[in-house]
Amino acid sequence: MALVVQKYGGTSVGSVERIKNVARRVAKTYDEGNDVVVIVSAMAGETNRLVALTQEVCEFPSEREYDVVVSTGEQVTIGLLSMCLQSMGYKAKSYLGPQIPVMTDNAFSKARIKSIDDKKVREDLKNGNIIVVAGFQGTDLDGNITTLGRGGSDTSAVAVAAALKADVCEIYTDVDGVYTTDPRIVENASKIERVSYDEMLEMASLGAKILQIRSVEFAKKYGVVIHVRSSFNDNPGTLVMKEDSEMETVLVSGVTYNKDEAKISVLRVPDKPGIASKLFAPLTDANITVDMIIQNVSNEGYTDMTFTVLKSDFKKALKIVEELAGEIGAEKVQGDENIAKVSIVGVGMRSHSGIASKMFTTLAEEGVNIEMISTSEIKVSCVIDSKYTELAVRVLHDAFELGSDPEAE
Amino acid sequence: MALVVQKYGGTSVGSVERIKNVARRVAKTYDEGNDVVVIVSAMAGETNRLVALTQEVCEFPSEREYDVVVSTGEQVTIGLLSMCLQSMGYKAKSYLGPQIPVMTDNAFSKARIKSIDDKKVREDLKNGNIIVVAGFQGTDLDGNITTLGRGGSDTSAVAVAAALKADVCEIYTDVDGVYTTDPRIVENASKIERVSYDEMLEMASLGAKILQIRSVEFAKKYGVVIHVRSSFNDNPGTLVMKEDSEMETVLVSGVTYNKDEAKISVLRVPDKPGIASKLFAPLTDANITVDMIIQNVSNEGYTDMTFTVLKSDFKKALKIVEELAGEIGAEKVQGDENIAKVSIVGVGMRSHSGIASKMFTTLAEEGVNIEMISTSEIKVSCVIDSKYTELAVRVLHDAFELGSDPEAE
Repeated sequence: MALVVQKYGGTSVGSVERIKNVARRVAKTYDEGNDVVVIVSAMAGETNRLVALTQEVCEFPSEREYDVVVSTGEQVTIGLLSMCLQSMGYKAKSYLGPQIPVMTDNAFSKARIKSIDDKKVREDLKNGNIIVVAGFQGTDLDGNITTLGRGGSDTSAVAVAAALKADVCEIYTDVDGVYTTDPRIVENASKIERVSYDEMLEMASLGAKILQIRSVEFAKKYGVVIHVRSSFNDNPGTLVMKEDSEMETVLVSGVTYNKDEAKISVLRVPDKPGIASKLFAPLTDANITVDMIIQNVSNEGYTDMTFTVLKSDFKKALKIVEELAGEIGAEKVQGDENIAKVSIVGVGMRSHSGIASKMFTTLAEEGVNIEMISTSEIKVSCVIDSKYTELAVRVLHDAFELGSDPEAE
Repeated sequence: MALVVQKYGGTSVGSVERIKNVARRVAKTYDEGNDVVVIVSAMAGETNRLVALTQEVCEFPSEREYDVVVSTGEQVTIGLLSMCLQSMGYKAKSYLGPQIPVMTDNAFSKARIKSIDDKKVREDLKNGNIIVVAGFQGTDLDGNITTLGRGGSDTSAVAVAAALKADVCEIYTDVDGVYTTDPRIVENASKIERVSYDEMLEMASLGAKILQIRSVEFAKKYGVVIHVRSSFNDNPGTLVMKEDSEMETVLVSGVTYNKDEAKISVLRVPDKPGIASKLFAPLTDANITVDMIIQNVSNEGYTDMTFTVLKSDFKKALKIVEELAGEIGAEKVQGDENIAKVSIVGVGMRSHSGIASKMFTTLAEEGVNIEMISTSEIKVSCVIDSKYTELAVRVLHDAFELGSDPEAE
């Protein structure tokens, strides 16, 4: 008998029919002899509806009150799922974040979980209950409702799994698992059986939108095994877990891409100490996150700096930099929204050389120019012209032999 | 400076526009130098939407989980109203029932308030906050969410007013106050300035749907002065308060009617001990509430019994009684859905004689036959053919001189 934590996202509970579907799946896991704790999101569309209501009231709502309003979405789902399980003859009990309690700091609308009390839940499990927990929400020390930010239900699930020392945390979503790349671009993209926390973190931050990054950090910290799988079939999904020696034999685990960024170049800046700080401090003050930063070696006392920001911040960032250009003596500022970041990720890179070079060669052979490069221990990212995105993803996926072999199946 | 509790119902907060309207009214009361605690209902239609969701899941949802779902309606309103007040520059803070806490018993979906802790609210008031409280909800000793039943926000408001020893509890609704009768039937129905708790209780139970009965019982018990008034204008409304000698000088305070009941007659029953018990015990077992019961004097060892039930229970009740008829030796069972109960209410009846007789005469003069009569210390009710309802209400309203005098204004 195992203790299984399951998390169902908004699409999986998007209608009463789908909630009934989730109830059947939960019941099946319970019938197989497991203790089950279910974490659910708001029904698809509900959080957007609630956010729109707050926007109708005022443009910048108080974050405390914002959390009071938006946390109702999950509350509705836990009640509906619990009564559904009960009508099928199971003992079920719902819990709001504050009822467990899931204790967080008081950073409303982006709170972080501090601790989870497992006492009440354990007792209810012992009495044969299926436990249904509202994701996304918690309470601070003063009893205020807090929420964890978009996608926070993943983190709720992993944190509950950690607190209960669950055997596995199953994250149900609308795809079968984590793929070597986007199957909409590469037809023979294959499902990854096992992926390490670090690889998953890189993939998530590089644009693969399967798990909230914070949930993976949490899982890594507490050693929670995450099983990403589909709520619409019974296929085994992807295990996100501690790295082992076998994982290292794979050179590259996946190819990701991200079209959400734009590039700003500051050309011929006098290369003096303090230039970078003068340039980036105002961006930080304006709450603009800078991703990649490239500074070329100095040439005749001048240098070029290029960096990327989210497309949604692009206009604002460009304006700030243009205003600074005179002050720091730059010759010219250029912006470019037509870029994409293509990356390869794999813990195998640590022990295998030549992987970055193989990536550059592969792109060059297709005539794809690389505009920026950034690397970490387990990933290489290249910024390219966005029109080559799909081509680049396909040739890299092929070059590193990530596709499933139809004949082997 | 006074402490004012205001309660706004679903219609008053039915849209963001109306919530803004409520915020302006609350702010005005605050600006006049008062401490203000606001109790709100769910936005009009929202509770129905949530109940429909639970019905879609299963016909008889668990009451604990039902309360988890339906209590979200009020939660959304308190967040929206608080952020609205803040955007206008006021300090405001929302409270859920369980956050205050409003302690109740654990009778889910029809819980009763046991106590209210005023500590946190008092402190927030002292710091200049306007307090916005979710009506309708509380928590039991185990931390479960409970709700008070339909219309429960009135009771929340009165209970909060009692706990805080507020100077007045203003209940805002879509009418100007309590009228001598339904203005849709009698054009010159006049607003009652002051009405006693007992009169209000009779009126509420006789069909005037202004205040939830339990809220009036609560107000009577704790001496809370209720001011019923409109959220759409500034007219003074009706004060519901302790009876005083002046109220007794008025013979009749109001005329009410109720078309929600139906009549069942059991004819020529052998008049033996235990007959009434045999007849009514099965109805009680079936959860059918019987209102008026009339038993005629025995005639040659036989009697007739007539009683009224809610129209929604009529078919079920008729079937039960028809099955019993043989057993108790009754000759015939008759049902009639076309009845109405017309009543006059007033504490003046205690000290003035002839009021019932005047009612009977007035109806007789118009050819309205009285089918059943029931009386209490401060009301007389007559069951009549429903087609005479409006006529009866009008002539009684005239006979007891309840209309406003247009020339006097």
